[in-house]
Amino acid sequence: MKLLLTFSYVGTDFCGYQVQKNSRTVQGEINAAAEALFGFACDVTGCSRTDAGVHANCFCATVTRAGEKSLETHIDVSRIPVAMNAHLPIDVAVSDAKWVNEDFHPRYDVKYKEYVYRIYNSPARNPFEEGRAWHIPVALDEKAVDDMRKAALSYVGKHDFASFMASGSKVESTEREVYYADVEKNGDVITFRVAADGFLYNMVRIMTGTLVAVAQKKISSDEIGRIIESKNRQLAGMTAPADGLYLNKVVY
Amino acid sequence: MKLLLTFSYVGTDFCGYQVQKNSRTVQGEINAAAEALFGFACDVTGCSRTDAGVHANCFCATVTRAGEKSLETHIDVSRIPVAMNAHLPIDVAVSDAKWVNEDFHPRYDVKYKEYVYRIYNSPARNPFEEGRAWHIPVALDEKAVDDMRKAALSYVGKHDFASFMASGSKVESTEREVYYADVEKNGDVITFRVAADGFLYNMVRIMTGTLVAVAQKKISSDEIGRIIESKNRQLAGMTAPADGLYLNKVVY
Repeated sequence: MKLLLTFSYVGTDFCGYQVQKNSRTVQGEINAAAEALFGFACDVTGCSRTDAGVHANCFCATVTRAGEKSLETHIDVSRIPVAMNAHLPIDVAVSDAKWVNEDFHPRYDVKYKEYVYRIYNSPARNPFEEGRAWHIPVALDEKAVDDMRKAALSYVGKHDFASFMASGSKVESTEREVYYADVEKNGDVITFRVAADGFLYNMVRIMTGTLVAVAQKKISSDEIGRIIESKNRQLAGMTAPADGLYLNKVVY
Repeated sequence: MKLLLTFSYVGTDFCGYQVQKNSRTVQGEINAAAEALFGFACDVTGCSRTDAGVHANCFCATVTRAGEKSLETHIDVSRIPVAMNAHLPIDVAVSDAKWVNEDFHPRYDVKYKEYVYRIYNSPARNPFEEGRAWHIPVALDEKAVDDMRKAALSYVGKHDFASFMASGSKVESTEREVYYADVEKNGDVITFRVAADGFLYNMVRIMTGTLVAVAQKKISSDEIGRIIESKNRQLAGMTAPADGLYLNKVVY
């Protein structure tokens, strides 16, 4: 059996999820903690890759003995989260562990993933939101948030999202299905929530940048369909900063 | 006129509010930013002192020219928050600035202050709450939270709070008036909110530790009155960690 871990992390002090030489990464920390806990070299395979500064409220990865398709341990699976956390730094924590079959793949078996993007909308910055939201000082009123919501609805459905992919990215297909997309305002925080069967590189950040351009009246909410059809990255909005992005849900 | 600033800070990386030699303090950062902005040495007088690790959603302090009772500047007061923030590190930010009379005192003129204490109650730790809440892994159920709320109500009123002061503290009077005290649970976060005309050293943290002892059935919610009357620090609960404490409101 493979061990499937669910964990969360504050992305601020990581050079992204995926292991890189001489860099502090989430995968590197999970790998080191698993090796310390189980006493042998391990392989860690994640559900996704997140960039430097991007957070996860929920990230899934399988752990196996290095070079093997399974992992054996005498530790009861219910005790693994707390045991792993004892070996992990403060900015990453395992919340759940369970056994899955050897043919389970944490990336390919994903049905859908949900991201949230947080915008802090207030004139002065908020130190508690530093690195955890995109600070937009100019007030976005109710009408602006309504326009963002309307624009977000245009993302829903099966579309070619080439306009919403970082230029230079290489993938076989740029078609993705967005299941839902919504914008809500709660106090000073505007949250964009989007779920899809998969995401292109920087897709949520470009979607967010485009919604903010709508709020700022640089793009009309009616234009989103045309921007999608154009398959032209230049027509969409800016890439929103990494700080506000959270992988929020992974459904298998 | 004196300049009255309202600011917030994440206490984690500060050795408390008040200036100390060779230590990073909030007062020190505000002072340095004011001097950089106004171009002369300044005095900063705060509404309170917070310990290392304690946060503020709202902290007030006056700024005057060093050795004087006022401050003169050509900068419009509405622009001071953003201008100050340009000189401040990411973990402290000014949200408001206004002019007050020279006889205004940011500590002695306080009508009441409100603190909140945040408890994160979930088996696994949450990296986003690290340093921002007291992590209590064992589940506190609805009944436990009700008992905490009932106990908190016993704090309300004018009492001698000697039982809720760090032993060894020296003050003229240990009588304080608590205006309201409540406990609410929202998801995994339990919040204790308390307002008083003043607080003794570690008072909110000892109040919180006592409420948690009630939740854990080490103290009955009916005993709070007796603990207050005893004026005996030993009968109250432990001092809750600094991490969960926030100065939340200052009313003049």
